[in-house]
Amino acid sequence: MSNNILVKSLYREQKDFANKEIKISGWIRTLRASNAFGFIELNDGSFFKNVQIVLDANKLENFKDISKLPISSSISVIGTLVETPDAKQPFEIQANQIIVEGMSSSDYPLQKKRHTFEYLRTIAHLRPRSNAFSAVFRVRSVAAYAIHKFFQERGFVYTHTPILTGSDAEGAGEMFRVTTLDLNNIPKTEEGKIDYSEDFFGKETNLTVSGQLNGESFALAFRNIYTFGPTFRAENSNTARHAAEFWMIEPEISFADLKDDMELAEDMLKFVINYVMEECPEELEFFNQFIDKGLLERLNHVVTSDFGKVTYTDAVELLQKSDKKFEYPVEWGIDLQTEHERYLTEEIFKRPVFVTDYPKDIKAFYMRLNEDGKTVAAMDCLVPGIGEIIGGSQREERLDVLKKKMAELNLNEEDYWWYLELRKYGETPHSGFGLGFERLIMYITGMTNIRDVIPFPRTTGQSDF
Amino acid sequence: MSNNILVKSLYREQKDFANKEIKISGWIRTLRASNAFGFIELNDGSFFKNVQIVLDANKLENFKDISKLPISSSISVIGTLVETPDAKQPFEIQANQIIVEGMSSSDYPLQKKRHTFEYLRTIAHLRPRSNAFSAVFRVRSVAAYAIHKFFQERGFVYTHTPILTGSDAEGAGEMFRVTTLDLNNIPKTEEGKIDYSEDFFGKETNLTVSGQLNGESFALAFRNIYTFGPTFRAENSNTARHAAEFWMIEPEISFADLKDDMELAEDMLKFVINYVMEECPEELEFFNQFIDKGLLERLNHVVTSDFGKVTYTDAVELLQKSDKKFEYPVEWGIDLQTEHERYLTEEIFKRPVFVTDYPKDIKAFYMRLNEDGKTVAAMDCLVPGIGEIIGGSQREERLDVLKKKMAELNLNEEDYWWYLELRKYGETPHSGFGLGFERLIMYITGMTNIRDVIPFPRTTGQSDF
Repeated sequence: MSNNILVKSLYREQKDFANKEIKISGWIRTLRASNAFGFIELNDGSFFKNVQIVLDANKLENFKDISKLPISSSISVIGTLVETPDAKQPFEIQANQIIVEGMSSSDYPLQKKRHTFEYLRTIAHLRPRSNAFSAVFRVRSVAAYAIHKFFQERGFVYTHTPILTGSDAEGAGEMFRVTTLDLNNIPKTEEGKIDYSEDFFGKETNLTVSGQLNGESFALAFRNIYTFGPTFRAENSNTARHAAEFWMIEPEISFADLKDDMELAEDMLKFVINYVMEECPEELEFFNQFIDKGLLERLNHVVTSDFGKVTYTDAVELLQKSDKKFEYPVEWGIDLQTEHERYLTEEIFKRPVFVTDYPKDIKAFYMRLNEDGKTVAAMDCLVPGIGEIIGGSQREERLDVLKKKMAELNLNEEDYWWYLELRKYGETPHSGFGLGFERLIMYITGMTNIRDVIPFPRTTGQSDF
Repeated sequence: MSNNILVKSLYREQKDFANKEIKISGWIRTLRASNAFGFIELNDGSFFKNVQIVLDANKLENFKDISKLPISSSISVIGTLVETPDAKQPFEIQANQIIVEGMSSSDYPLQKKRHTFEYLRTIAHLRPRSNAFSAVFRVRSVAAYAIHKFFQERGFVYTHTPILTGSDAEGAGEMFRVTTLDLNNIPKTEEGKIDYSEDFFGKETNLTVSGQLNGESFALAFRNIYTFGPTFRAENSNTARHAAEFWMIEPEISFADLKDDMELAEDMLKFVINYVMEECPEELEFFNQFIDKGLLERLNHVVTSDFGKVTYTDAVELLQKSDKKFEYPVEWGIDLQTEHERYLTEEIFKRPVFVTDYPKDIKAFYMRLNEDGKTVAAMDCLVPGIGEIIGGSQREERLDVLKKKMAELNLNEEDYWWYLELRKYGETPHSGFGLGFERLIMYITGMTNIRDVIPFPRTTGQSDF
């Protein structure tokens, strides 16, 4: 089967294959046939577009059988590539021989009619064969590679931070417990408490909500690192933007302040979007036409804009001065809601914008306290159409300030002994941010439900497949 | 801080910086000083090697303070790069100004004397600052990128298969239970069983042991896909080769038989090893000198060999005919042990070798049954020094054969409804394999304990950091 050509090659190097006999394999997307002729739209998964296969009853022994194949049957085709400059498609394959690899069943659920995304979620094992999901998951793959490419070309060290963790990191959210205890017969100590010494790790263990603290330890060795792995939230929120399992990218940079952090975030976003626009033009065209009419304009705008910058304090003032009636009123000290974020980026700045220097009380303990004693060196990156896509900060590198903050929040120093030691043995100004990968994919594709950008989504009550 | 140069650039583009004033930042690895002069070996994490900084009391105002800095203090240096063709190091930086970023403490645990790997595991947050672990984790990062590069350049779609799973996949091993139930107060049904309807996903949920079945579903849409993510085993085995959390690469290819599968595995291994040899020559040189004297010779041998091929049946015969006394006697039907695998690849073939067509009873249910009815189209790739590094197979695409096999093993068809449907709607011959990423890193670095190639390893009783 090795002389088999990928359809992507036919499209990208069409001239090389013109008038030559080739072999391709794939799945039938559509088929129509008369007694004498037939046409198959074949997709082999290597490329968004189909290839038109022309069937001629005079040339194909098994013409009759082929012309009755159900949708999604898999076939191999040996035929001649003929350029068709006047037709809708740039070329077609005139079949000389067709081999049936696997006949599909006539009850194949993805018939030509349009299905709702809700329905397609119930057949997650088949939906990547549809146009929309073929486009989504190829973009997801290409964007993931762009993330790696961006960081690796800059010498960042990819760090696999642990998924199983004995600590609750930053209290970023509800956690999943991981255990090998027999739930029918939980071992107890003499005091009647759960005896975690009998559990696999000998103590309470959860799924990670963030790799940041571990990431910092590697940044203080390798200078520049990034993570890219799954993270988990056990939050019972049944929204279009939340999943229990999602992938995060968390770079961490040493000898770097908040300004360096924002530069990195802006460069990364532009790089990834540019890369996807270059590698997946067919997919983005599809999204722009069928999913989100303003998509390409918005993406082009992002990659050519200089991102804005505004302090939280100024942003609050701008929002208060606007005529817009918000559902949640704006005052200094509140956490900005999506409506505020979108208004800032879409109406006031009309481009992506970093909001910086948030009140310390609404941000995490590890963010660096500013001179004013009231705000921290944090930043959120807001983009039109979605609001917050990145959150980051300069980290508190001063041991005494960090300890004081932890005491205020009743965090136990012993639980963070190694994190504190990073400040003791050669601290430096350092910064980092987190990018939710699914949110990025929603942004690049225009898809509006997180369940539709994850191959097999896990949400409240949903872990099928 | 943005005009800061990475040490890697100084080494790679030394000529461009010669006799120029530059600024670098990093951590002090060693420092020795008299009253008039001093020398710092500075490492900034961007490169394996240190830079020599020359301190001159006449030029540096704070010479005295600098010369007393503890190891691992972080500093920024403004100075002139002077080439030193006659010295051990190719250049040095003559410091004009030194800024202390963060002073370390004199009890810094990584002093110059050599530490055992066992001890360094107890300071996993600091060990990447040592030579050995700086080399290991950079190689890990570069190898991970090589994996992505290999598959992406061939058009494979990177697929994030789920970590949380409601099914036990292939029964590949003991699983971790994931739950949000209150373990102090487990809800029970009227029959006294655990009421999983109250759990987060409404049913029993575990951590994945393999993404393969999900991967197959995407391969039957995209033709060629790969996974690269964490997998889990709750096995109580305290060995140097097993971890509870590790990363796996699982490509899956459609319209492809076992021969195609082996070709892919061989190409991938060679690509990754070549890429690491090109990108990390300093690190591999270090491993070759201090960790495993035969390493470079072995790696060079692998990338230039054509891998051997032998059936399991022939391999058993070869082992039986050999003079070697094995701890486990060899007979047809046994699972090959590491001692057998290593003998085959090291003594008989003297190069990497694929063993194919194993007895069906020792392999997984989804492997394709051969014509003989006794063996399956499986392959293990064995490499000198380690034994099995890759295991793969052609998948059983024939619905009736697959169902029969599942019935023999008492697997419930309902649990696999979607996996079976892949065979109903356009099956094709398809194949895939699994590569344990940590085992690959051990192979490339010569490190012999899996705990020493994972940033923060999780093993029985161990989930610190």
